[in-house]
Amino acid sequence: MNDGRPPATIDVFALAARDSFARSNGIEIVEASAGRAVTRVRLEDRHINFNGVAHGGLTFTLADAALGYASNSHGAMTASIDSHIVYSLSARTGDVLTATAVEIARSNKLSNYRIDIVRGDGKLVAAMTGTTYISSKPIEV
Amino acid sequence: MNDGRPPATIDVFALAARDSFARSNGIEIVEASAGRAVTRVRLEDRHINFNGVAHGGLTFTLADAALGYASNSHGAMTASIDSHIVYSLSARTGDVLTATAVEIARSNKLSNYRIDIVRGDGKLVAAMTGTTYISSKPIEV
Amino acid sequence: MNDGRPPATIDVFALAARDSFARSNGIEIVEASAGRAVTRVRLEDRHINFNGVAHGGLTFTLADAALGYASNSHGAMTASIDSHIVYSLSARTGDVLTATAVEIARSNKLSNYRIDIVRGDGKLVAAMTGTTYISSKPIEV
Amino acid sequence: MNDGRPPATIDVFALAARDSFARSNGIEIVEASAGRAVTRVRLEDRHINFNGVAHGGLTFTLADAALGYASNSHGAMTASIDSHIVYSLSARTGDVLTATAVEIARSNKLSNYRIDIVRGDGKLVAAMTGTTYISSKPIEV
Repeated sequence: MNDGRPPATIDVFALAARDSFARSNGIEIVEASAGRAVTRVRLEDRHINFNGVAHGGLTFTLADAALGYASNSHGAMTASIDSHIVYSLSARTGDVLTATAVEIARSNKLSNYRIDIVRGDGKLVAAMTGTTYISSKPIEV
Repeated sequence: MNDGRPPATIDVFALAARDSFARSNGIEIVEASAGRAVTRVRLEDRHINFNGVAHGGLTFTLADAALGYASNSHGAMTASIDSHIVYSLSARTGDVLTATAVEIARSNKLSNYRIDIVRGDGKLVAAMTGTTYISSKPIEV
Repeated sequence: MNDGRPPATIDVFALAARDSFARSNGIEIVEASAGRAVTRVRLEDRHINFNGVAHGGLTFTLADAALGYASNSHGAMTASIDSHIVYSLSARTGDVLTATAVEIARSNKLSNYRIDIVRGDGKLVAAMTGTTYISSKPIEV
Repeated sequence: MNDGRPPATIDVFALAARDSFARSNGIEIVEASAGRAVTRVRLEDRHINFNGVAHGGLTFTLADAALGYASNSHGAMTASIDSHIVYSLSARTGDVLTATAVEIARSNKLSNYRIDIVRGDGKLVAAMTGTTYISSKPIEV
């Protein structure tokens, strides 16, 4: 289910349950461990842009949710500083997109994540990199 | 209303009207000219993340919609290649966010945009930069 | 000379004088004020890549130096967290490139910059956005 | 030596031999295959910034060189569109930095790369993502 990481310090599924924007757009959490999280969405007509393919904002949000869950999994409240996404393939209504966020570095104050977004056929749809600021406050769940 | 740019080649408002993901999240288009577009959203509870502030995905989508309208305003169908966003301030339910996308460079095949996202008090909430690929197909509106 | 910003808190030119990598590559500082800096380089054969145009690393370094001078201009030591660059035009041996870094947001711990890189003809060659972490230590000059 | 990829279509080492900016800064190519390349540099005093650590421009250039070799390895001339880098650890004079660029997606016109930059102790110093435009011209070596 994960890549051998220890379990998250907090209940990441409970955290995801109050992520209004992700939930209202049909994004669900699939897995979580320390520094890693997986999210998923089945593309509906409401997720599409004016060219008939998945909106970049939907793809980004799916990945950003995974990043947020992975980053807060250690128990300290974090906030995104920056994110970069490249798009490599389009996706359409009915496709299932899965985003996997993995922590690649962590210091006292900052942590970095890479997020792969893949289609049901396993092909890469987009790739994100993000940085978060680690506050001194615990995340309340 | 704009910065002296000529009008868009196509009806950008009609294009925005069929942007399902933006519309379903309450994002509206405010202005459009050649290479420039402005979008707006009033933050509701559904736009919030688990920390009680605007979800990064919502902020990104607002800016990405402005980028898409600005980029397609010339009449050729375009697709996003990459986008980068930095977050500088948070926003809360009730705040109005406005994103202004401005074309900063354009060649035959590629164009670049900077997008400022500001709160009602005029303060910068986030700043995006994006690149689009200009296809040889006209955008149908 | 600048855009009305107050003078820098420190001697930014003295700081730039000990920036070995920038200096060894012919990059010089032209202006500095609080949250703003301008750098310049005249392209030589040593700055070129295998396609005969300015190496992306040279363009990035020119902009990164401007970002570093602008960011440290307030007197606190800062370190880059992330940078994003888009390339819009190429440049060749003999061209003069000028990078202008401008602070667009600043909090206690983080600050954001946009950097324009232009050729002698005024055309945009590249655009960077960067974030720095503001330490609690003063920068020694 | 590589990850099972087929050999490059062109002589990537010959290409690197005429990369003036990389060479003049002591950056060497270590490996190359189709869509993958590794570069390396031993940090000298000339690579350092005003804070006494590796200049972001040097780290970026090392990764950008690897990206350029990986991207041109298929035989078509390519040019960078955008690059994003996050910095996670600093490096000092005497450290050896190694950058590994891996192609993560490729279409007719665009390709994407992730580049890891590590110190001699194996720790991640920086992570880059980049996109290149694939021209219709062959790269001459």
